[in-house]
Amino acid sequence: MNSLLLNCDIGESFGPWKMGMDAEVMPYIDCANIACGFHASDPSTMRKTVALAVSHGVRIGAHPAYQDLVGFGRRSMDCSAQEVEDLLLYQIGALEAICRSQGSRVSYVKPHGALYQDMMRKPDILRAVMRAVASYDKGLPVMLMTTRDNQQAQAIGDEFGITLWFEAFADRAYDAAGYLVARSQPGAVHHDSDVIVNQATTLAKGDALVASDGSALPLRADTLCVHGDNAGSVAAVRRIRQAFDALAQA
Amino acid sequence: MNSLLLNCDIGESFGPWKMGMDAEVMPYIDCANIACGFHASDPSTMRKTVALAVSHGVRIGAHPAYQDLVGFGRRSMDCSAQEVEDLLLYQIGALEAICRSQGSRVSYVKPHGALYQDMMRKPDILRAVMRAVASYDKGLPVMLMTTRDNQQAQAIGDEFGITLWFEAFADRAYDAAGYLVARSQPGAVHHDSDVIVNQATTLAKGDALVASDGSALPLRADTLCVHGDNAGSVAAVRRIRQAFDALAQA
Amino acid sequence: MNSLLLNCDIGESFGPWKMGMDAEVMPYIDCANIACGFHASDPSTMRKTVALAVSHGVRIGAHPAYQDLVGFGRRSMDCSAQEVEDLLLYQIGALEAICRSQGSRVSYVKPHGALYQDMMRKPDILRAVMRAVASYDKGLPVMLMTTRDNQQAQAIGDEFGITLWFEAFADRAYDAAGYLVARSQPGAVHHDSDVIVNQATTLAKGDALVASDGSALPLRADTLCVHGDNAGSVAAVRRIRQAFDALAQA
Amino acid sequence: MNSLLLNCDIGESFGPWKMGMDAEVMPYIDCANIACGFHASDPSTMRKTVALAVSHGVRIGAHPAYQDLVGFGRRSMDCSAQEVEDLLLYQIGALEAICRSQGSRVSYVKPHGALYQDMMRKPDILRAVMRAVASYDKGLPVMLMTTRDNQQAQAIGDEFGITLWFEAFADRAYDAAGYLVARSQPGAVHHDSDVIVNQATTLAKGDALVASDGSALPLRADTLCVHGDNAGSVAAVRRIRQAFDALAQA
Repeated sequence: MNSLLLNCDIGESFGPWKMGMDAEVMPYIDCANIACGFHASDPSTMRKTVALAVSHGVRIGAHPAYQDLVGFGRRSMDCSAQEVEDLLLYQIGALEAICRSQGSRVSYVKPHGALYQDMMRKPDILRAVMRAVASYDKGLPVMLMTTRDNQQAQAIGDEFGITLWFEAFADRAYDAAGYLVARSQPGAVHHDSDVIVNQATTLAKGDALVASDGSALPLRADTLCVHGDNAGSVAAVRRIRQAFDALAQA
Repeated sequence: MNSLLLNCDIGESFGPWKMGMDAEVMPYIDCANIACGFHASDPSTMRKTVALAVSHGVRIGAHPAYQDLVGFGRRSMDCSAQEVEDLLLYQIGALEAICRSQGSRVSYVKPHGALYQDMMRKPDILRAVMRAVASYDKGLPVMLMTTRDNQQAQAIGDEFGITLWFEAFADRAYDAAGYLVARSQPGAVHHDSDVIVNQATTLAKGDALVASDGSALPLRADTLCVHGDNAGSVAAVRRIRQAFDALAQA
Repeated sequence: MNSLLLNCDIGESFGPWKMGMDAEVMPYIDCANIACGFHASDPSTMRKTVALAVSHGVRIGAHPAYQDLVGFGRRSMDCSAQEVEDLLLYQIGALEAICRSQGSRVSYVKPHGALYQDMMRKPDILRAVMRAVASYDKGLPVMLMTTRDNQQAQAIGDEFGITLWFEAFADRAYDAAGYLVARSQPGAVHHDSDVIVNQATTLAKGDALVASDGSALPLRADTLCVHGDNAGSVAAVRRIRQAFDALAQA
Repeated sequence: MNSLLLNCDIGESFGPWKMGMDAEVMPYIDCANIACGFHASDPSTMRKTVALAVSHGVRIGAHPAYQDLVGFGRRSMDCSAQEVEDLLLYQIGALEAICRSQGSRVSYVKPHGALYQDMMRKPDILRAVMRAVASYDKGLPVMLMTTRDNQQAQAIGDEFGITLWFEAFADRAYDAAGYLVARSQPGAVHHDSDVIVNQATTLAKGDALVASDGSALPLRADTLCVHGDNAGSVAAVRRIRQAFDALAQA
């Protein structure tokens, strides 16, 4: 029970600019997706972020992205598969060295933003991600988005011998195919924290969600994506953690 | 005999811009100082450069720099010792991951350009370099410039348990204290390849050079810095390699 | 006669990296599309490039691009129309100030690489370009690619009161709709300089080309895009210039 | 009376990262020193910042810096005078184009951070700043720091025909030579807002300050540097504005 890891984007400050409530959310998460300098962060911010994760015993994941600070890695760039493979290795290694200097290591990889979206849409980009991780360390899991049917992604993971960690969201509505309802649609984002905590525990128990059309939606989920942007999202993470702890003791 | 390793800056192209005759000089060198993306290079160029070094069995060194592409890392920046430590780790790790994906590894570290100069002038910057390398891998030697008296540098290396590889130049005149004669002075740079090869073999044999004031100058040298910028410098490297091979067989 | 301006991408060096034979091609062209620091160039390179153009009496055009040095502005980025408008203004102004310091000015605008391609495919991006130029100086023409039917582009130009300069190519084959034959197709690029010069003079005289399917292709062209990448392309530009001079005297 | 302009660094957000209370402080200032993308800001942030300044009728100054986002332009870089001249022109022009698209213009220039400090210490850098501004528009004043003896700076300004706007600080103690007391010294920074407002009005009236050694310190000041970083500094600016308004009506 409670095998659902809480993962959170962390370390997204840059130079003098602060972002996120890293110190506040860190006590409640299992996995810190740490920015690697291409969409956010810089070597000194990465050092401080790794130190914070280490001090909380939180697993460190590389959170590589397209090279686009001003766009925060959220704008798709027409990179070749080879370029994606190369920029992943670069960022994973940069973070690994900083981890290593603090007696830690990179434990998994979760692409960020537009690169994450592109990886989900384009098999050649997903293969590039797998190829990079496999050539670096076959033992590192890759996080990607769960849907109702994860067969294609699983096949690509298997091709490279890479473990996939499928992630789900507690604060988003799903359609019947297991895709997130677009933010432009009514009801796409859950704001009521009871609803959020309930969706989190449903996923953790392995029960089916209710999709936006009312149908039952079974979703494989290994990890839950949570947010540390503001006080509200940190409070939601704390409640989810408490609910998971209660489940574990039940 | 012939323990003098030939090291050369390699992989200093960037995106669509080419620099250096890497493929031509690679057959004659022992150690490739590979740019890590802060003063030159990018993830894809690094991959190709590592592949080239691996195919020639050349040792790979990280060649980290201040973050200044337009200035090619040649402009001193007023970074703190902590910032220097962090940017070194970032760059060493980035290169290491690319090496690892090709079955190789980073074997030593040689700071680039203004960072190299600053490290030689400022003990706190040299310490930052040592601290970064020691926290990453105590087994990695650091290259730095030899002078007549290397005691201070050696003491700092010893402090961190880091092996120092002192480097000398075959194409530059030295003053009596073992510093390079400034380029603005007459005779500072040797252009005659006989003179260059002769200085290289003198250093390789462990004999004293003749300083610019005529005095004998004994210099500890573990490695010789050579250049692959153009056809002339590549030809000089080939001649030095041949002279070293002849020495080894003598 | 001979109203066909020769335009050429110029000033695409960056920091220590050189690209293109600017000094060699400048004597033969009318319009220098000068890189503005986002895909190539930097403030000091821009100053030298502007000085070279001024010394040859060549018109200066801003050559703005997506912010992607490592990809040389050739990778499409998913920027919003507003972002495109803003980055155009930034780059036009940066070049204008450097022109102004040398008694010159920006005379037209030609977007570069992927931004140019995106502008041709996406009306909202073309509108963003027009809006930027119109809000800066309605008197600046915008260069874009001619096709058989330029009606849509012309309508957008008219909407903003912007003069369009349609450009054609002398070294590329066209299909019947007036689009460039893809480089992957046989015969897409002309290598014979007689063919290139002939296509240039045909366009200059306002005669129809022969499209790849053998049909007659009338193309409106105000300017011809030429290249200064290497000795061969510079030689072709010189021959085109001589042919145009001969036409003008006929 | 009340010729003392209130100037404030503005528009120092970058991409997704926010900094400063621009909207809150704008109503109380005369001159907005707007970041130009080298130490902070980006084309879209610059557009929004210019719009805000225009809507408040605040004069816009270019706030150019060394190219160092991660260091926020606070780390001295060993740029040549020519490089400084070039990067100033680039940044002034970029901002000017964005102003022009909104019916406004750049009205003065104030270098930022380490470039400002270097300009005060090194006459060749100050000359580079003057040369850039003079070659762009001799009518643009340059802001720099007042001291007891401004003769050298004034002579360099006169050399280029550039108007100098000397700035003073209301929240900092001065030594007898009119330099700011180092922040490491006790009493270097005034925290009591009565003291701050009093120093501001003393400067506005042209009266002498009391230096840290108790001596009378007459300081030429054309403008007062104020801050919009946080609620406290914004409140201080509002009080200074009210005091100046009261003076003007007296």
